[in-house]
Amino acid sequence: MPTYQAPVDEVTFILNDVLRIERFNNLPGFAEATPDVVEAILVEAGKFCTEVLAPLNRTGDEEGCTRHEDGRVTTPKGFREAYRQMVDGGWLGLAAPAEFGGQGLPGTLTVAVNEFLASANLAFSMYPGLVQGAVAALLAHGSDAAKKVYLPKLISGVWAGTMNLTEPHCGTDLGLLRTKAMPQPDGSYKITGTKIFISGGEQDLTENIIHLVLARIEGAPAGTKGISLFIVPKILPNADGSLGARNGVSCGSLEHKMGIKASATCVMNYDNATGFLIGEANRGLQAMFVMMNEARLAVGVQGLALSEVAYQNAVTYAKERRQGRALSGAKEPNQPADPIIVHPDVRRMLMTIKAFNEAARALALWTALKGDIAWRSPDEKERQAADDHMGLLTPVVKGVLTDIGFANTVMAQQVFGGHGYIAESGMEQFVRDARIPMIYEGANGIQALDLVGRKLPKDGGRALQTFFAEVQGFINEHKADEAMKPYVGPLNTALSHLQQATMWFMQNALAKPDHAGAGANDYMHLFGLVALGYMWCCIVKAAREKLKAGANGATERMNGKLVTARFFMERMLPETATHLARIQAGADSMMALGAEGF
Amino acid sequence: MPTYQAPVDEVTFILNDVLRIERFNNLPGFAEATPDVVEAILVEAGKFCTEVLAPLNRTGDEEGCTRHEDGRVTTPKGFREAYRQMVDGGWLGLAAPAEFGGQGLPGTLTVAVNEFLASANLAFSMYPGLVQGAVAALLAHGSDAAKKVYLPKLISGVWAGTMNLTEPHCGTDLGLLRTKAMPQPDGSYKITGTKIFISGGEQDLTENIIHLVLARIEGAPAGTKGISLFIVPKILPNADGSLGARNGVSCGSLEHKMGIKASATCVMNYDNATGFLIGEANRGLQAMFVMMNEARLAVGVQGLALSEVAYQNAVTYAKERRQGRALSGAKEPNQPADPIIVHPDVRRMLMTIKAFNEAARALALWTALKGDIAWRSPDEKERQAADDHMGLLTPVVKGVLTDIGFANTVMAQQVFGGHGYIAESGMEQFVRDARIPMIYEGANGIQALDLVGRKLPKDGGRALQTFFAEVQGFINEHKADEAMKPYVGPLNTALSHLQQATMWFMQNALAKPDHAGAGANDYMHLFGLVALGYMWCCIVKAAREKLKAGANGATERMNGKLVTARFFMERMLPETATHLARIQAGADSMMALGAEGF
Repeated sequence: MPTYQAPVDEVTFILNDVLRIERFNNLPGFAEATPDVVEAILVEAGKFCTEVLAPLNRTGDEEGCTRHEDGRVTTPKGFREAYRQMVDGGWLGLAAPAEFGGQGLPGTLTVAVNEFLASANLAFSMYPGLVQGAVAALLAHGSDAAKKVYLPKLISGVWAGTMNLTEPHCGTDLGLLRTKAMPQPDGSYKITGTKIFISGGEQDLTENIIHLVLARIEGAPAGTKGISLFIVPKILPNADGSLGARNGVSCGSLEHKMGIKASATCVMNYDNATGFLIGEANRGLQAMFVMMNEARLAVGVQGLALSEVAYQNAVTYAKERRQGRALSGAKEPNQPADPIIVHPDVRRMLMTIKAFNEAARALALWTALKGDIAWRSPDEKERQAADDHMGLLTPVVKGVLTDIGFANTVMAQQVFGGHGYIAESGMEQFVRDARIPMIYEGANGIQALDLVGRKLPKDGGRALQTFFAEVQGFINEHKADEAMKPYVGPLNTALSHLQQATMWFMQNALAKPDHAGAGANDYMHLFGLVALGYMWCCIVKAAREKLKAGANGATERMNGKLVTARFFMERMLPETATHLARIQAGADSMMALGAEGF
Repeated sequence: MPTYQAPVDEVTFILNDVLRIERFNNLPGFAEATPDVVEAILVEAGKFCTEVLAPLNRTGDEEGCTRHEDGRVTTPKGFREAYRQMVDGGWLGLAAPAEFGGQGLPGTLTVAVNEFLASANLAFSMYPGLVQGAVAALLAHGSDAAKKVYLPKLISGVWAGTMNLTEPHCGTDLGLLRTKAMPQPDGSYKITGTKIFISGGEQDLTENIIHLVLARIEGAPAGTKGISLFIVPKILPNADGSLGARNGVSCGSLEHKMGIKASATCVMNYDNATGFLIGEANRGLQAMFVMMNEARLAVGVQGLALSEVAYQNAVTYAKERRQGRALSGAKEPNQPADPIIVHPDVRRMLMTIKAFNEAARALALWTALKGDIAWRSPDEKERQAADDHMGLLTPVVKGVLTDIGFANTVMAQQVFGGHGYIAESGMEQFVRDARIPMIYEGANGIQALDLVGRKLPKDGGRALQTFFAEVQGFINEHKADEAMKPYVGPLNTALSHLQQATMWFMQNALAKPDHAGAGANDYMHLFGLVALGYMWCCIVKAAREKLKAGANGATERMNGKLVTARFFMERMLPETATHLARIQAGADSMMALGAEGF
């Protein structure tokens, strides 16, 4: 039976020592988030995850969700009670505005807590995750009246939310969508169509579900420019907020999936359902894009979350399981065999995951912090710079953290040998669950294309230049320091690979866009390695400062950061050279075959 | 619903044009394997796989195996009939000696057919696969009497076989095993103990099951030097071969696994079961090692097999699914969207899998051919060279083909977007099934250690030097040829990386064995890339010869080989540089942390 302990110390180290969030006390909500408050919240969240959510993870996977003949959906045993506890704990409204019942704390804190929830129980965490998405959409685009009706109910957790984009024939290419919205005399719309892959489309956790639905108003232009966003409540609220009539929306079936089996993935049928336009007509995709950075960051964090929980369980197993002897001679000669953590290849796997997790967490929190600045800073220039950063880094966080996060669950499973293939160990569930973040919220190929095709050239490459300048600035500042050389030296090489790759695109992809498409995945991963390498350099700097200052009982942990950073620089960062070589190979051999040649 | 077509043309191209097996007509069984006979066998095997086995793959996964209260195990619906058809078709005895009822054809042909079986239905294919293992063990170590009793029944498919190595507390480290064998006055033994992860330990496909069991004779030395191999029939045969008394062996439970759910993975309880020593006492591990090359090659082929079937289905989907437009402009402007095979990132995934599959198949068949030579050649020197090759390449084939094969099923699933996560597509089953070959028959970390720690230094590095000389010889022969330069040039670089890595081990690992352990996984993959790169060069050579000779209607396919080889050289082979860098980083940062630092 797998277990989970929230890495609270890791998060507070990143927030306080690496990102030094006390610098942002001028932002709304940040002054309240003192180190003590933050730690108390994280500890409490961790406790809830360890004690309530983690024990429901395997049972939820085994039982799955059930759709009844009348369209009702039942979540696995224990989910209702856990959801109630989460709602009662106020976890849904941590960063939501106080005027709608939230606590107004930094969104960065929500991202940290979301990692814990997803580690403990990814399938469960999707229900509150979608509520956060609906809240963000309403905050950004809802009318005052809509905000007043929906936000308090969503933030308090009494109602839940969903996102309805995909249809059977269109996922990535939303321009093809067919769900129709017929305008009604009272200003509302009648929505008709079928949506698929709707997480939490139906469930038994909340008394109402607020569906956000993309549809095409009758007569709207074809393609992406004719898509609007609608609120479609499962039960229509009366003017006083009480529940009124059942709306024409229902769950037609549940999907049988590889993983996240406790998350109800619904086919949703809209049959003349009453919907309310949110934002401008025909601007629904733009409205979705506003939320997309946050949603994609959240999905990236899911990749990290599964990597973390799989790592923790692999470490426990590697310390307990005894097979063979250390190559350097028996470590515990009185025992029949050494624990397998003595074997270099087991350490290779554990160190690889560890060196990813710690930097990936820093990267996610850094990006989340930029999100807070982009929304909350009073300084327009600061907001813009933060927004640039978020736009640029979001596809990297989503694509790289989910790709590597998945690979890490596979590696952690490998530590278990045959036992990892057995359901009882829980390791195979982590692998199955970790597979979906690579796909949903924009498959990772789309993230790569978003990065290369949209984010790089945006505003004349402003965001990218700023990122390069920051990383190069750090390198220049520390390159003369002998103690920093083993870290900034490799980072400098990796950064130059990224710059060469960027240059190659500039010189080749304008004339032949396929060159950009062919290199996009490698560019995203090259970018991710540079960003993670930069995080490691920042972590090393903070760890060394802490060590100099006495480290407060954390000497061993801080020394461990220096070792792990070395491992990252020596073993993981060198991949940038391969990515560069692939990018510079261009599209020719990739595109040469006719479809019949496959 | 996924489908499968056996790649018969690919196999015959490799056998006839790349490996030119007609050169080996002096070996027993090879003269009979004329191109026409081989093709007819492959076509027939492919038909059986497409029509009988592939349709049972998803249903078998859904239903799984059932253990009844009395210990009987039922395989999924359709398996019994399919097994019967396979037995009636004579597929089990393709390469087995004629004197025991086999057809005596080359083992290479069995490897080709095994790929088809595993593609169509990996779980099913394990039942006959284990029979092949038992046959190999008996041929190598059985007494004449034992051969006479067991081989005809196994080869005809009336009885099945299993391998019993693992116990709850020991898998990799068999020196720890505890199953006991008490000598009896009649020369037999009483076997008592528990074995786990026993594939086909119980089933309803055959009237009897012959278990090969590792156990420790009472009083034998501790560790690996006190292990013996026993035959333990489920039902004891009478002297005339008819079935006698039920033996004291039974299935205690079935494991719930991530995949291969239609393969019965049993906990086997031996309770004073009658067993017969096979081979010498206390030399059981050595007896197992003889079969291990073949078994590991077979598992490597499973990785290829799943990569192939996943690829085929991804190609079909990529040609049918329409989303978005080609970056270079709409390819089918009259349709609402282009098929996704126009997108570079989709092609990147398909080409990556294709470029692996075709070379991996060549590598597997080349190694299988060496196996045939090692067993059948009348020339001792030739036998030794082939045995060297097999020993060296087997861990590479097992480790690399299963690691990359699994990664490829993940990539093929990604082509499907969200639909690949749904069970109905069948893609997620390929991923789950492809995960086990990385683990069983020696986890891939063990393969890497076997390669670096045992196979490299063996006989003063004789096998490795011969391999280097062959690849270098090919490069030297063709490096002046302009048409071959794009292929042999990159191979030369990769080979030099492998040689540098070898040199690094020689200079560093003697003093500190952890350096070898730390680099073993990268070395195995570096070796694999060189071997695959060499295969591509051989394929290119054969394709160019075919093109020069007129190609016989295969011009387009042969030109496709040249393109795919280019893709491999440009996009996949460059990884050798990263592997080398990692190896040269050594063990220091990997081993520095204490166990408590994780």
